[in-house]
This record gives sequence, structure tokens and C-alpha cells, in this order.
Amino acid sequence: MKQELLNEVAAQWNSRTKPQGSLGRLEELAQEYCVIRGLAQARIEKLGLYLYAGDHGITEEGISLYPKAVTRQMLANFEAGGAAVNVLARQHGVEVKVIDAGVGEGTKNFAQVPAMTEAECAERLLAGRVDAREAAGKYELVGVGEMGIGNTTSAAAILAAIGGYSAAEVTGRGTGLDDAGVQHKARVIDAALEKHALKGATTLKVLQTVGGFEIARMAGFLMEAGTLKLPVMLDGFITCAAALVAVKMEPASRDVFFFSHRSAERGHGRMLEELDGDPILDLGMRLGEGSGAILGMHLVRCAMNLYHDMASFESASVSRSEA
Amino acid sequence: MKQELLNEVAAQWNSRTKPQGSLGRLEELAQEYCVIRGLAQARIEKLGLYLYAGDHGITEEGISLYPKAVTRQMLANFEAGGAAVNVLARQHGVEVKVIDAGVGEGTKNFAQVPAMTEAECAERLLAGRVDAREAAGKYELVGVGEMGIGNTTSAAAILAAIGGYSAAEVTGRGTGLDDAGVQHKARVIDAALEKHALKGATTLKVLQTVGGFEIARMAGFLMEAGTLKLPVMLDGFITCAAALVAVKMEPASRDVFFFSHRSAERGHGRMLEELDGDPILDLGMRLGEGSGAILGMHLVRCAMNLYHDMASFESASVSRSEA
Repeated sequence: MKQELLNEVAAQWNSRTKPQGSLGRLEELAQEYCVIRGLAQARIEKLGLYLYAGDHGITEEGISLYPKAVTRQMLANFEAGGAAVNVLARQHGVEVKVIDAGVGEGTKNFAQVPAMTEAECAERLLAGRVDAREAAGKYELVGVGEMGIGNTTSAAAILAAIGGYSAAEVTGRGTGLDDAGVQHKARVIDAALEKHALKGATTLKVLQTVGGFEIARMAGFLMEAGTLKLPVMLDGFITCAAALVAVKMEPASRDVFFFSHRSAERGHGRMLEELDGDPILDLGMRLGEGSGAILGMHLVRCAMNLYHDMASFESASVSRSEA
Repeated sequence: MKQELLNEVAAQWNSRTKPQGSLGRLEELAQEYCVIRGLAQARIEKLGLYLYAGDHGITEEGISLYPKAVTRQMLANFEAGGAAVNVLARQHGVEVKVIDAGVGEGTKNFAQVPAMTEAECAERLLAGRVDAREAAGKYELVGVGEMGIGNTTSAAAILAAIGGYSAAEVTGRGTGLDDAGVQHKARVIDAALEKHALKGATTLKVLQTVGGFEIARMAGFLMEAGTLKLPVMLDGFITCAAALVAVKMEPASRDVFFFSHRSAERGHGRMLEELDGDPILDLGMRLGEGSGAILGMHLVRCAMNLYHDMASFESASVSRSEA
């Protein structure tokens, strides 16, 4: 069944007026897209981006250059259309849905206590699943993005706990910490993993203890996307932390992921290894918001347009290779 | 003067609602674009692509999988809108100008005699300069692309002669040769360089002897673009061969180049080293036609949209970093 689909996709690509394989990664992207949809004639009509925001109690530990208030301020900026993601979304015809997963109240400071209660975590997972069902009814490819001052700390803690890394191996500059700031951030993470005894803990326990509201809701979104076979474009380090949670809880969710770009955030390389993800772009970006996801979705759309709209050797009366 | 411009660009980027430097390569692309234009408030309105086609006598030596006739057939495909470049151009709002630089008659077989006469070569260089003047009046960023069965052989010969490489170091599969085919192609190139005594020859002599009509006309275009300060997006291996000729003849032309992508064609890495070019994309493409150039232009346009259209910290009432 899958082999038949792969054969049909290969035959369509090889009928197009170009040397075989000469569109490189674009040919692979179209194939992967068709495989997720289970349909060699799959098409992308509308693109959406789900942009999750949440506040993080861990900001009390001085792990970010920016004050926590910026999360709420950026929510207003998203609504007003002034953020990077808005500019890119307008240019690419992507609808952005901004979701307040817990701004204001925010998570608790996980240096002291678990970030969320079990109920708070379960609520976000469920809400994310509901979002994905909505998205599947509206879009043929959907990106996820996030905003939350402090959330690279949460993402690094998740990666360290699940992947068995020391914090020093996965902690990066976030919005721009200096070396001393990164070392402090890593100490905060190591201390929290120790305090809450997270080595060997369940994924759900890790998420609840050091995760964020936006990360939990994205994880729910990604698991449901896996169930629905909705193709999803991941953004950078934080969306990949949600993806790591999703894959550990529901391994089949991995099958619907595209990896848009390799982030400049330090732990992203290891995160991609954990997820076996090969990003499309490497532009040194580290903004989040889904900015990389939009660029990645654009390239998948390019791939699908080429796949469907190029002339065939026959229709264009072009001679095939002599090999 | 240039420092003032750089300061103005940096100040504009740093006023935008994002951590400093977090858009990575996109911030650099906007800076490079403004530097070429000499204007911190430069804008891109229209994008164009000049697509040069030429036939190659060297095809008589069996160095390509495709028959020479495909060049003319693909010209018709470009005009009908069925080629990869057409699909991408429609998606990105890029105007394509297809230029027959010498299809049909074609160059002579440089395994036997020089590909062009001095007059033929000079004509193409001049025609390319005229094209660039036209382009500068219509577009703020222009891509170059090419089509010509046999032209990876010509491009590899140019690189070997100018860069002092053996053919084996720079000869690749083109449209899909097997190992034996690549070895034959390299032998043809080495023999031609020897026969015409091209080691140490002038760049103009190299171009005339082993170049192609489309490569010569692109070289003229690129030199004139340098004079006019018209930003140009290069495509892959063959457009870079034209760029190498241009830079050797008029070094200042280098200042207007963007490198869209790292081609899968074998010699492109060395070509990029010769040109000190750092491509934006690495998608394993090896099609030509300007397909990579369109994707590269798109990312420069993304960069300029972000640079101009994002809200500032002040206008969006977002707090700046505390560092």
C-alpha cells in the first residue's frame, strides 16, 4: 500500500520535464507530504499557524534577558500584526491563530515546585487535541510556533530529563544570555531535575514538572495531529521540545512532522537527534513564533506546486534521457 | 559612508520587536541588500529572472545523458510555462525573460576547435550588458538562470582552467551521468584544456574557447550589474561559472552577488570557494533554469519585508531586554 503510493509519487516526479532527482530535497518533501496524507494526489490549499503563548514562573530565577511581561506584550503585538511571524504570515498567505495557553497566571517556578498541577497539564493536552481537530478541518498543512519568556529553560529541562543529558549539554543563550547567564540557567535546570527526581520519570511527569502551558498544549496538538494524519511543520527548539514529549507519549505522531529549520539555540542539534529530524533550512534563526515554520511550509508548498504543475515530457514534447 | 549605512541598518534591525540577531541569516541578507543598493531604506518591488539558453557543440562528445535537441524543446517549455522555473516564478511573482543566446546554431565542439570566435564571444558579452541595463530599469533584484544541454561540461572546463584544477576535481554528473560517464567527461575536458593550452590563459580566452553562448552573455550581464549596483541572485554551478568569469574580468562585480543555493553538482563547492560565496540554501538541487535563484530571491524579499514591516519596541510597547 505504502509502496504503491511511493511508486506513484516517483512516477509522477519522473514524468516531469527535469532530470531525475534534480529538484533534490523538494522531491523528497513532496513525497513525505503525500505519504503523510496517504494520497499521491494530495494538494495543499490553505496553510495555518497555531501560535501558543504561555508565561513561565521560572523567570523568577533570572534565566532570561527579557522581563516576563514581554509575553503579554508580544501577544498584543501578534494581534496587532507587528511581529515577525505576522509579516511572514501576510507574505505567505498563512492564517495565524494566536492561543493564550496561560499568560498572566503562568506556570509556577519549577525551581521550587512543579510548574503545573496534574490537572493543569491534562487540561492543556486536551485543549491542544481540540485545536488539532479544528486545524485538520481547515488546513492541509499547519505550523506550530510559540512565545513565552523563559521557555528555552523549560525546553532544555525537558530535553535533559527525557534524553538523559546534563543541563550544560543542552542549555543555550535563549534570547541572548552571555556565558555566565547560560551557566546560571544550566545550574537552575540541573537543580530542578535533581529536586524533582526527574531522571527516569515518566514523560508526563517531566512535562508537568518543568514544562510550560504552551508546550503542553502544543504536545497535545502534535499527538492529535499524529492521530489525524495532519502534516505539521515544527519550528525551532521549543516546538521540538513539545514534539519530543508527543513522540515519547505517542510514537506515531513522529510520522506527521516536518522540521523547518536548524535553530541557533544550542540544544537544538541534540533535540533533532532525539527526534531523528533533518531540518530543511539552516539560517541561524532563533526567534520562535513559528517564523521558521512559515518558511518551511512555504518550501513544502513550492514542492507540491512543482510536483503537480510542471509539464510532463509527453505534454511538453521534450525528449527523455538516453540512459 | 559605508559604516554610517551599516549603523543605520543595525539600528533599524535592533529597533524591531525581537531579540537582537534572532533572525540570523535573514538579518545579514537585508544588510547585504542595503549595502549593494547603498541605501538603508532600499526596498524590493519587482523581481525578475533572466533565463539564458544556448546550445553546445561539445555534446558531440557524448558528455550528456540528454540529446542536444532538448535545449530547444525546453525553450518552448519555458515559453509555454511548463518548466520548473515557470511554476516557481508564478508562485513567487517573478517575471521570467527567456533569452536565446545561441540555440540551434550553438557553439563549436571545443574538443576540436574553440567554442566561439572572438567576435561571437564579444557579441554575447555586450548583449548581456544591454540586458542588465534593461533589468536595472525594471527590477530591484534579479536572478539569473540557464539552460543548455552540455553546459556543465563547459562550466567545469572554465573552473578547471581559471582555478587551476584537474578536470577530475571539478567534473560532476550533470543531468545524471554514471561514474564512467563522469570519467569520460573529465577526460574530454582535460584534453581540451591541453589542446588549447588554457593553463594560464586570459579569462576572455578561456571563455571564448570552452565557454557557451549563454555563459558568455550571463558574464556580460553580471559585469554590467556590478557597474550598475544591481543586486543579482546567482543560481547554481553554471551561473557561478559565468560569475567566475565576470569577477576575474571585473572584480567589483562580486559585490552585487547573492548565492542562492549549494548545488548537488560536484564542482560547485570549489566554485563557491573561488567566489567566496556562502549559499543561503542547501537543498540538493541540480536543475538550473534559475530554480534555486527564485527560492533565494524569495528569502531576500522575506528579509526585507521583516526589516521594514515589523513593529518597533516603541510602537508596539514591548519592553526591551534588561542586558
